[in-house]
Amino acid sequence: MTADSIALFAKHGRIAAQLRGQIESGSLAVGDDLPSESDLQSRFGVSRGPIRQALATLRSEGLIETTQGRPPRVRAQPLAQSIDDFFSFSSWVRAQGKVPGQRTFEIARRRAAPALVARMGLADGEFVVEIVRLRLIDGIPTMIERSAFHDSIGKALLTFDTDSGSIYEYLIDNGAELDEGTHVVDAVPAAPLDAELLGVETGAPLLRVRRVTRSRRGLILETSDDRYRSDHASLLIYNSRNENRPTPIVARTTHTVANA
Amino acid sequence: MTADSIALFAKHGRIAAQLRGQIESGSLAVGDDLPSESDLQSRFGVSRGPIRQALATLRSEGLIETTQGRPPRVRAQPLAQSIDDFFSFSSWVRAQGKVPGQRTFEIARRRAAPALVARMGLADGEFVVEIVRLRLIDGIPTMIERSAFHDSIGKALLTFDTDSGSIYEYLIDNGAELDEGTHVVDAVPAAPLDAELLGVETGAPLLRVRRVTRSRRGLILETSDDRYRSDHASLLIYNSRNENRPTPIVARTTHTVANA
Repeated sequence: MTADSIALFAKHGRIAAQLRGQIESGSLAVGDDLPSESDLQSRFGVSRGPIRQALATLRSEGLIETTQGRPPRVRAQPLAQSIDDFFSFSSWVRAQGKVPGQRTFEIARRRAAPALVARMGLADGEFVVEIVRLRLIDGIPTMIERSAFHDSIGKALLTFDTDSGSIYEYLIDNGAELDEGTHVVDAVPAAPLDAELLGVETGAPLLRVRRVTRSRRGLILETSDDRYRSDHASLLIYNSRNENRPTPIVARTTHTVANA
Repeated sequence: MTADSIALFAKHGRIAAQLRGQIESGSLAVGDDLPSESDLQSRFGVSRGPIRQALATLRSEGLIETTQGRPPRVRAQPLAQSIDDFFSFSSWVRAQGKVPGQRTFEIARRRAAPALVARMGLADGEFVVEIVRLRLIDGIPTMIERSAFHDSIGKALLTFDTDSGSIYEYLIDNGAELDEGTHVVDAVPAAPLDAELLGVETGAPLLRVRRVTRSRRGLILETSDDRYRSDHASLLIYNSRNENRPTPIVARTTHTVANA
């Protein structure tokens, strides 16, 4: 490595650190435009190279986003996502400065099917409460949610208006011990009904997240199967060898979607 | 909650904890069968209910897997996955007790295309080293990997046999500062070439992981676009409110694939 390239590293690193600081402190807020490349050049007294590197770093960290022909803009800060924002669609969407929505297709209390008996560790013949909802971001269909709740907490949902908001927040407020979750992430083709609800072709790839939520004592209280339009939402994972940065960080992110 | 159900929680929790301990200590090793349900019933002196719940908990934690008509079996332990296992396909696959493989399609040093210039924060006209490989697990095509390396570390790869093993391990051994990564996970349809290489239909859903790898100082050293057959591999995320369990944990997991 030449002395020149070391100096260059230092420059772009310093610029990225300053801008990161402004974003983290809120002096550059979510949705704000960053100064233009030429403004940044004169402010930092550097050429275009280090500015570009600093912007690429912030982009790769998920702190800014660039749309064709616009200055880079500060985006929601996934690196600060709480466990509530990861579990709850509503609080996640609100944290992105957007409006969550939901349309309930079915809520039913029924005896668990064999696959669910095994998945939840139930006794044969036990009841569960199953819910199917379409979830929306700013009115745009984004995800199909199929959940099954242990009867001990599910019964309370039969009298809750599941079109009104977050089931997760409702259950937490009512003392449900939704303490830990395991999420398996893969890709599946859209079934005809899901395709129609999400506005994609049948067979289009959806990002699937299957979750099992347990109490601290290991009782399975909920399982869900969430299928996202992956052009509207994706997962972001950050990890590092740097002992000073606690990792990994996992976050859901929304994508800017043109209102149709 | 009745006294009965509290007692039940305690039982299945204790059973799960004992089995978990045996798995974590290695006294039940990866690939081992668990005792049958009836053996577990007599060992713990309980009925079938708590055994089933304990098994469901371990399954939901990714510690055991169940295949139709077989006793549950201890699977690779994603909860202990290191950052190396997350970055490196080879070391991840080896950690699962399987054999990693790779077939190189192209390695090229060329001037970065405009999208890559922006993504890596390069100057116009800068060189990168790009590599396309098919990755295999036990000889089965599982992932297409397209990587671009900063010229400062990429040049070394031109003389490395990329069919021989892990690029990541080779670079780390040679002092490359692959310190932190951001990974964006979504679902995409298989393009015709990828479909052929992976043995799926064109348009079939693939799990895509796009990574940006940086040095501690924020220099972008590598970007990659990995596309997985999601019936062969998926991501597992675990998170918890329990302050005693450091979270989240992120891991790739393999699925048992019948040899064709």
